[in-house]
Amino acid sequence: MKSICGVEGVTAWGEKKGKFGLALIRADGVAAGVFTTNLMKAPPVKVMEERIRRGTLSAVIANSGCANAYTGTRGHRDALYMASIGAEALNLPAEEVGVASTGVIGRYLDLPLIREQCKRVAPDLARTEEAEVLATRAIMTTDLTEKHSLVRRETFSVGGITKGSGMIAPNMGTMLAFIYTDAEVTAPALRESLRSATRRTFNRIVVDGDMSTNDIALCTATGKAGKVNLQEFSIALEECCRTLAVKIAEDGEGASKLLEVTVEGAPGEEEAAIVAKTVISSPLVKTAVYGADPNWGRVIAAAGRAGVEFNPDRVNLWMGDGQHSVPLVTSGEIVVDLSRAKALMQGKKVTFTLDLDAGKSKATAWGCDLTEKYVEINGRYTT
Amino acid sequence: MKSICGVEGVTAWGEKKGKFGLALIRADGVAAGVFTTNLMKAPPVKVMEERIRRGTLSAVIANSGCANAYTGTRGHRDALYMASIGAEALNLPAEEVGVASTGVIGRYLDLPLIREQCKRVAPDLARTEEAEVLATRAIMTTDLTEKHSLVRRETFSVGGITKGSGMIAPNMGTMLAFIYTDAEVTAPALRESLRSATRRTFNRIVVDGDMSTNDIALCTATGKAGKVNLQEFSIALEECCRTLAVKIAEDGEGASKLLEVTVEGAPGEEEAAIVAKTVISSPLVKTAVYGADPNWGRVIAAAGRAGVEFNPDRVNLWMGDGQHSVPLVTSGEIVVDLSRAKALMQGKKVTFTLDLDAGKSKATAWGCDLTEKYVEINGRYTT
Repeated sequence: MKSICGVEGVTAWGEKKGKFGLALIRADGVAAGVFTTNLMKAPPVKVMEERIRRGTLSAVIANSGCANAYTGTRGHRDALYMASIGAEALNLPAEEVGVASTGVIGRYLDLPLIREQCKRVAPDLARTEEAEVLATRAIMTTDLTEKHSLVRRETFSVGGITKGSGMIAPNMGTMLAFIYTDAEVTAPALRESLRSATRRTFNRIVVDGDMSTNDIALCTATGKAGKVNLQEFSIALEECCRTLAVKIAEDGEGASKLLEVTVEGAPGEEEAAIVAKTVISSPLVKTAVYGADPNWGRVIAAAGRAGVEFNPDRVNLWMGDGQHSVPLVTSGEIVVDLSRAKALMQGKKVTFTLDLDAGKSKATAWGCDLTEKYVEINGRYTT
Repeated sequence: MKSICGVEGVTAWGEKKGKFGLALIRADGVAAGVFTTNLMKAPPVKVMEERIRRGTLSAVIANSGCANAYTGTRGHRDALYMASIGAEALNLPAEEVGVASTGVIGRYLDLPLIREQCKRVAPDLARTEEAEVLATRAIMTTDLTEKHSLVRRETFSVGGITKGSGMIAPNMGTMLAFIYTDAEVTAPALRESLRSATRRTFNRIVVDGDMSTNDIALCTATGKAGKVNLQEFSIALEECCRTLAVKIAEDGEGASKLLEVTVEGAPGEEEAAIVAKTVISSPLVKTAVYGADPNWGRVIAAAGRAGVEFNPDRVNLWMGDGQHSVPLVTSGEIVVDLSRAKALMQGKKVTFTLDLDAGKSKATAWGCDLTEKYVEINGRYTT
C-alpha cells in the first residue's frame, strides 16, 4: 500500500460520480489540524476546527464538487448535518466525525446526494490499496494525478493523501490533506509537529496565489505502533507532507513543469521563504519557465520586490533541472551561458537557487509554470 | 493635439526600429518623479532619481528594447552616457537631461544604436500631433495601444503619455509615464501632487503582480500658463494619471477585458485599496472574467485573504459592465441571478463593487483578465 491504509488502524473508501465525490476515512486517535487563514472560512472548516479542539477524532467525511463556502447559517447547518450523516453510517458519536468540502464556492451542498453516496461508501471501508485509491479520487477536483505518500520508519509509519491543484497560495490553497500515523503522540505534540511541517511544506507551494476558503490539513495518530522518538516522528511527518506538497505543485492547474526555488544566504528562514515564494508566484517567472526561456532577470526582479533587504551586487544565481545546474549570476556579475541555460529548461523540472549573501538561512518553495491550459481550466469553471 | 504637445513649452519626437525605440522630450521646468520601489532598481532609474532631486529638468531621453537593468557599474556608466548623448544632441548641460529605459533585463544598452537614433530624432523635435504619436510609439514594448491623455482646464493643461503592459504590479509596473503641465507649480508642491496622484492611479493598476525594476512617473511643469489654484491642479493631474493608468490596465498583456473593482465601506482608503488590489490581482478572478463565468465566490475568497478585517455576513457585492449592474450578494445573502450576471460579462469591461460595511472609505483599482495570450506573450519574451 502506498499511503493512508499503509498505516495501522486506518480504513477508507470513496466514490466519485461526475464532479461529485465522497470519501470516508476511519481512524480513531489523537488529532490535530491546520486550517485556512482566509477570513471567509467555509462552514465545514469551522465545524472541523471545533471538533478537532477536543484533541481526538474517529473519522472524516469529505466531499468534492461543492465547497459549501459562503453559504452562511444554512451552510453551517449543512456541514453539521453532513458530519451526522457520516457518524450515523459509521455508528459513531457525531462529535467524533470531522467534515471537509472542496469545489465551487457559493453553492449549497446536495445533502440527499451525500447521504446516498455515504450509504454506498460506508459498508466497504477497508485497509487495501483499492480503498486508498478510491478515497483519494473521491476528493479530487481539477487534480489530474492522485497524490499519496507513505513514509515508513522502523517502528512507525506516516501516510497521507491530498488534493489540490488551483487556488493554491502561500499559506495553503484549496487543499485537503488527510495524514495518518500509527505513532503514539500526544495532542499538543501532534499539533506542534503538524504546524511546523505545514509551515515548511504546504505553506511553501504556490500555484496561483489564491487562498482557498476551505483548506484543511488533518493528522490523526492512531497510536497502534506505540511510543516513538518525537524528533524522528516530526522529521517523518515533514517528509510525508513535503512529498504531498510537491505533488500538488507538480499537478498545478495546467502545469507542464515543476518549479523549485531555493533561497540561501538569507538573514532568517522566514525571509528566505518570503523571497522563494515571491519568485515562485511571479507570473513572469512562471511563463518564462513554461516557454523554456532563460529570462533570469525576472527571477532577480521578483526577488527585489519581496521586501527582504539584501545587496543586489552580491547575489549568486543558478538554474538547473534537478540533476545539473549552471551559474547565471556570480557575485552580482552576469555569467550566464544562455544556450546551456535554455537546454536545461527542456525537462519536467526547473530549479533556481538564489544566494542572497545576507545570512545563513535557507528555504525552498515549489510551484509550477503558467500555461494556456491554466487559463482554459479557470475561464469556464462553473459553466 | 491629444497629450503632451498640447501643453505649452513641450516638444517631442521619436523613432522605433523593430524592438528598439528612442524618444526625446524637451520641456524646461520644475520636475518631480516617482520611482520603482524594487530593490533591484535599474541604473537609469538611479540616474533619473538623482537628477530630479535638483527640482528642475530640461529634457528626457528614453529608449525601449533594453531595460539596462541588473547591469551593474557598467549599466550605470551607460545610463550616464545615454543622458549625455541626449544632452549633446539638444545642446543642454548633461545634468538637465533625464534618462529612462524599458525592455529586457540583464542586457547592456546598444549605445552606438542609441547615438544613431538620437541623431535622427533630435533635429525633428516639434509640438505637433505627429511628434507626440512618434514619441509614444518609441517607448512602447508589448503595448498594443498608444496611451495619451490631455486634461484641459480654463487656465492650464496637463498632458501625459505612458507605456506599460506587463510587469504591472501594485506600486507601479514596467511603466514609463511622462507628464507635462504648463501650470506654474513649485517643486515641493509638484512632488506632493504627483505622489498623491500616483498613489491613487498608477499604484492601483495590476496586470500580473510583477513589479518592474524600471518604473518612472515623471512630471515637468513648464510654468508657461502662470500660477494656478493648487487644488485644481492636483485634481487635473490625478485625472490625467487615471486616464493613463486605466489605459495601461486595458492594454494589459493579452487582455480582452478591463476589470474595475471598487471597494466601499472600508475602515480607511488604504484598506479599501488593499482589498480592491487583491481582487484585481487574483488569477482566479481574472480567468473567470475572461471566460465570462460569473464565479463571484472567487471575488469573496480573494477579499477574504486581503488581510483587512470585516464581517463576511454583512458584505454587499454587485457586478456590472460599466453601464448596468446586478446585485450578487446583499448583507451576506446570495441573491445572484446567474444568467443576468453572465450576460453582463460579455462586453469589454467588467466591474465589481464590494461594500464591506466596515467604514466609510472607498477606493478603486483597475486590472484586466488573464488569457492564453498573456501566457503566449510571456513564454517566449527573449527568444
